[in-house]
This record gives sequence, C-alpha cells and structure tokens, in this order.
Amino acid sequence: MIYLDNSATTKPYKEVIDTYMKVSEMYFGNPSSLHTLGKEAEVLLDQARDQIAKLLKVSKKEIVFTSGGTEGNNLAIKGTALEHQGRGKHLITTNVEHASNYEAFGQLEKLGFEVTYLNVNESGEVNIEELKKSLKDDTILVSMIHVNNELGSIQPIKEVGELLKRYPKIYFHVDHVQGMTKVPISFKDCHIDLCTISGHKFHGPKGTGVLYVREGVRLFSLFTGGVQEYNLRAGTENIPGYVSLAKALRLSMERYVANKNHLFQLREQLLNDLVKIEAVILNSPKNGAPHIVNFSLPGIKPEVVIQALSKKEIYVSTKSACSSKLAEPSRILMVSGLGEERAKSAIRVSFTFDNTIEEINEFVRTLVSIVSQLKEVMR
Amino acid sequence: MIYLDNSATTKPYKEVIDTYMKVSEMYFGNPSSLHTLGKEAEVLLDQARDQIAKLLKVSKKEIVFTSGGTEGNNLAIKGTALEHQGRGKHLITTNVEHASNYEAFGQLEKLGFEVTYLNVNESGEVNIEELKKSLKDDTILVSMIHVNNELGSIQPIKEVGELLKRYPKIYFHVDHVQGMTKVPISFKDCHIDLCTISGHKFHGPKGTGVLYVREGVRLFSLFTGGVQEYNLRAGTENIPGYVSLAKALRLSMERYVANKNHLFQLREQLLNDLVKIEAVILNSPKNGAPHIVNFSLPGIKPEVVIQALSKKEIYVSTKSACSSKLAEPSRILMVSGLGEERAKSAIRVSFTFDNTIEEINEFVRTLVSIVSQLKEVMR
Repeated sequence: MIYLDNSATTKPYKEVIDTYMKVSEMYFGNPSSLHTLGKEAEVLLDQARDQIAKLLKVSKKEIVFTSGGTEGNNLAIKGTALEHQGRGKHLITTNVEHASNYEAFGQLEKLGFEVTYLNVNESGEVNIEELKKSLKDDTILVSMIHVNNELGSIQPIKEVGELLKRYPKIYFHVDHVQGMTKVPISFKDCHIDLCTISGHKFHGPKGTGVLYVREGVRLFSLFTGGVQEYNLRAGTENIPGYVSLAKALRLSMERYVANKNHLFQLREQLLNDLVKIEAVILNSPKNGAPHIVNFSLPGIKPEVVIQALSKKEIYVSTKSACSSKLAEPSRILMVSGLGEERAKSAIRVSFTFDNTIEEINEFVRTLVSIVSQLKEVMR
Repeated sequence: MIYLDNSATTKPYKEVIDTYMKVSEMYFGNPSSLHTLGKEAEVLLDQARDQIAKLLKVSKKEIVFTSGGTEGNNLAIKGTALEHQGRGKHLITTNVEHASNYEAFGQLEKLGFEVTYLNVNESGEVNIEELKKSLKDDTILVSMIHVNNELGSIQPIKEVGELLKRYPKIYFHVDHVQGMTKVPISFKDCHIDLCTISGHKFHGPKGTGVLYVREGVRLFSLFTGGVQEYNLRAGTENIPGYVSLAKALRLSMERYVANKNHLFQLREQLLNDLVKIEAVILNSPKNGAPHIVNFSLPGIKPEVVIQALSKKEIYVSTKSACSSKLAEPSRILMVSGLGEERAKSAIRVSFTFDNTIEEINEFVRTLVSIVSQLKEVMR
C-alpha cells in the first residue's frame, strides 16, 4: 500500500493506539468526579494539556480540547462573532478557506454579519495591502488558513500578525490544521489569538483536536454545560483521545525535527517527475508546503485516475476530503484563477514522514501508465 | 474496587476497546475519500449507523453522530431555536435539567429568547397540566431530561409526547443520556423529534454520542463545513469511536434484556439497607430509575464521605459530575423542594449491570462505619 492522502487523514501511530487503549482501561474515571478514579483521570488530562502547551510554547490555560478541526474553526469563528458582536459585525477571511471556515462565515452572514473575502494571487497568497484596506472600525475578526489543504499555498501569517498587532481589538484566528508538524509557526511570534489543530492530521486519533485560545480572549461557547475546558467547551473530557493526541503531537514534532528535509525531498522528486509528463499541469505554488502537491490532468476525470490508482493500492485524492463528494469543480482552484478545466481535473498528493522516494517513483510509474491507457481509450 | 458512579461515566467494555483498536488500525481512511480505504471506512460507518438505527427502531437517516451528550443537547436546543426563531421565540424546559441543557437555555435567553422553566413535584416530575398552560402560539420547542441524573426521577415522556403530538409545530427534545439502556423508551411511540444519547454512559468510548433527529426536522448546525451527518454536523467522522459506540449500545441493550430485574434488585437491597441507617434521608423517588439512588447525610459533608469511601476503593459521587466542583448546593435537589441541608449533603450511588448484591452490602457496611466515625469526631 502506498498512502499519499495524508492531508485527508493519517494512519494513527501504533504508540497512539496503545496509549488510547491503556488510558481507556486504566483511567476511565470522569475527571470531574471527586473520588480517586476521577482525580487520577484529572491528573492525566492536566499532564496531556501541559505537554501540548510546552510543545506549542504557550500556556496550559490556552489549550482547549475539542473534537477536531471543524469544531475548532467553528468555535473560533462563531464564538468570536457572537461574543463580540456588540463591538462590531465586520469579519474578514479569504476565499481559499477550508469548508469548515468558509461555511461558518456563510452562516454568520445569514445572521446579519458582514464578511470580506480576501482574494489571493497566483501563489494562493493574500495581499497584505488588500487586507489593510479591508480593515474597518467595526472589524472584530480576521481568520485565515495557514497551509491551504488543496494547493499547499502558505499564507504570510507572520506579516498578517504583525499588521494586526496594531489593532488589539481585532482577533486573529489561524486554521493551522494542515500546517501542524509540517510547516511550523510560532503562535506567539505571529500574534495569533486563536489557532485550530486537528489530531487525525498528524497520526493522532480521529475526533480530537485543540483550539489555542490566547489568555484573555473570550468566546461565546458552542457547548455550554459543565465548567470543563475553562468554560469554553463543556462535556465529559475524552481523556484517552486527548492523551493520545498529545503523544501523536510529540512524536510528529520529533520526526519533523529529526529529518526536516525529508518532505522537501519527496516533493522535489515528485515535481521533477511530474513536469516530464505531458498530460500534467502543476497547480501547487513553488513556495508551498512540502507535503502537498496538486496537479491537473486536463480532459481526464480525476475520479477515474483515483480509482485506477486505488486498484494498485496507491491512494491519492481530488480536492479536500470534506468536499470530495460535491460534483462541482474545486472552489479553491477556481478562485486561485486556474480555470475550470484544471479545477475539474485536479489530483492532490499529500505526504507524511513515513513516505519514501521509492513510493513516489512507484506512484509516478503507475500514473504514467494509467494516463497513457486512458488517452488511448479516449482517442 | 467497587465502582458505583456509573452515572458519571462507565468503564468501557473490553470488546469496545478491542473494536476501537482494530478499526483504528485497519480502517483509518477518511470516509469522504474516493479511494478504496475511504470506501471501506464509509461502509463501516454506514453499518454502525444502521446497527444503531435498528437497535433504536428508527431510520438510519435519523442517526446523527456527535461527540457526546453535551454536544447533543446543545445542538438540539440551539439548533432548533436558531433555525426556527422566525416562527417564534418561546421555549419550554424544566428546572431539573442537566447543566448542558439548562445553560444552553440560559445562553438563548441572552440572545432574546423567552424560556419557561417547568416546576416538578416531590417525585421530580413535571405536571402535564402546567406544561399545557405554558404552551403559547410562539412556542417552538419543549425540551426535558428523561431520567434525572442526580435523583433518578423519570419524566412522563409518553404523556408529554401525546400532548405535543397535537402541536406539530412544536419540537420535542428529550435528554435520554441517563435513561439509555437502563430505562427504555420508544422514540416513535413518544413522538420525540430530537433525542440525545452519550456513548460513555453505557460502556462506550468517551467523546462519542448520537443525536436522534426525526426525518424532516431542520436544525441550525453548530459545526458547518463538510456534508457529513446529513449536513447537520460537519467534520471528519470518528469512525473507530462510532463503531465502538454501536458495539457498546448492542451489548448494553442485550444485557438489559437478559436480566431486566437486576438493577431493580440492587436498588431494592440498597434502599432496604439505607432506611435502617439513622443518619440517612432518602432523596430518590420510589418510582425512579433502577440505577440511581440519591440520599443525604444531613450535617455531614459529602466530600468527606466520598474521600473516606474512595480510600476503601469504593466510588460514589455527590451531584452531577459536570457540576461536582461547584461549591453551591445541588440545584436539582433545591428546586425539588428537599431543602438546603439535604441539597448540601447528598450522595449519589449509580449502578450498572456488572454491580452485585455483595458490592452493595460492602458499600453499606463501609458507609455505616464511616458515618459512625464522623459522628464520633463531631460529637
């Protein structure tokens, strides 16, 4: 099996599953319970929170556990908008966001908020000057994806943060789901107020995530009830999930540090091979993330290629997994100005640390053979 | 270890953890992905949904997976209120709800909704006539807990459903978190539109739940993004969690059917023993749920009793786990008219199928000894 769909989801590490199992068996108490079993679970939860905070170089009080990236984005965006609407109802985002960000803004428009959607250049990046011009007296939130999930384009988060530092009443939210453990950023140096992370994107368990909430930021909580997660996210804590998430984050960050160039080498090899294929047009920008390569096969249906590769146990995707069953062309590629033909025929290859140069070679050989067969049939 | 805090959380079944592990390893694909790994995960998710639907005697299209009871209650209540506010802004609930229901209504009041909180009688039940009188032209939702999490009182869900059947524009939501697999109800016979279930309350994994959403009911989704869960709850599905939840539900329902009287026998034994202890005043109603027994020890701090029991590896609780760290007396016991002294000194014992008569005897013996020691010290 050659799994090259790591931006859709990753295989959980063996150590992550083992941890989940052990914690489920040995620490099943409710951390809110006053007895020993509750206390033990609470200590474990606190350790996981502390470990994550240290890895992210933030405070333990800024780590809010969630059920994943979609919850994180929704809580950050709707939570800010609903809590601070008294100060203003203008919100800014980009038109290349993941659906969980994009649709949340759509829902807020229906509730009477005004949303500015920033455009991107051919590299998929927003323009700082355009952002500056969009800021208004009643702007309360700027929200953007760090590493684009389809193209791998990287937003200038540091520059945006530097700009917004001068506007302390505007909150800055970053969707860091694809960037985490692959394209590191410092939440503090980038002046980020809210940052979304999803466990299953770096070999952690599904149904877990973290929303970084800078100390002092108040949110309208989507889940009210108990006082868990600093009153921002009620509900009995998924202790085995959160402890395993902490383990996955540590292991993935260690693997990144141990071999920083590996993902770049995989990409380099793939790009070199792809440019030699006549049917291929590259979509990912040159300065994009090292783990996402997007290309189009104009005139060929990507579903057909994906199925043919799948039969050879090679797994890649079209667009975002969350949008993959919608028939329309990729919204991200359309607004990036790549045209409908490319937006309809895009293939996304996404790596993780385990992938090898041999796998890339095997993928390219198989792709070439499939494309030539398809061209033959279509002639 | 004698674990009698099963209303706070339960120990996951061995089979549940095994299933979680196997699915995590073998079916890690994103069900939204178009390749074989995605399809396999999608089939598994569909089977879990189908199994749960059959167990609950509802349609597969009515099963919406969530991250737990708190999410289910918040989605049902806020989702109905925000989606249907054009028809009316009056909501009805009771004053003995779990925090995740109660606080959601508090939040909606701040957004301009009007909420009627129904009173309960000394058995903790609402009065159908009072409910009838509360219904107004602009009422859009009636929401109540089935089995109360602190006292075990049971609401007359069937009668409420029969009444509300005549008001097709009013949605009926039931918090069935404590009742599931212990006090069965038929969602269809009770004319329920929305019903909350939590996995970890019946030996399933933490961070999993189901919201039953009757076909045709529209909700304002709290998580927007992908089209997962019939567009009601976006986000990559927690497949290992949901498949394990289905297993826990099946096993627990089978265990309930196999020995329907077991929980009643445990309660009978405990009640018989407790009435013989002078310091004890029973709080749970006679016609309450079989797995929850609440009693007070006036003049004694329940935390002290819980710690003393905990040292002997016997685990019980005070009030709801979600509220256990709040210093004030139990809201539920206060509004049930039991008085502050009893509301401050309450102990909750909650059973599951594994508990035995021997464990109850051991608990009572230990409690008697602890109470007499405390009385001695306080004299």
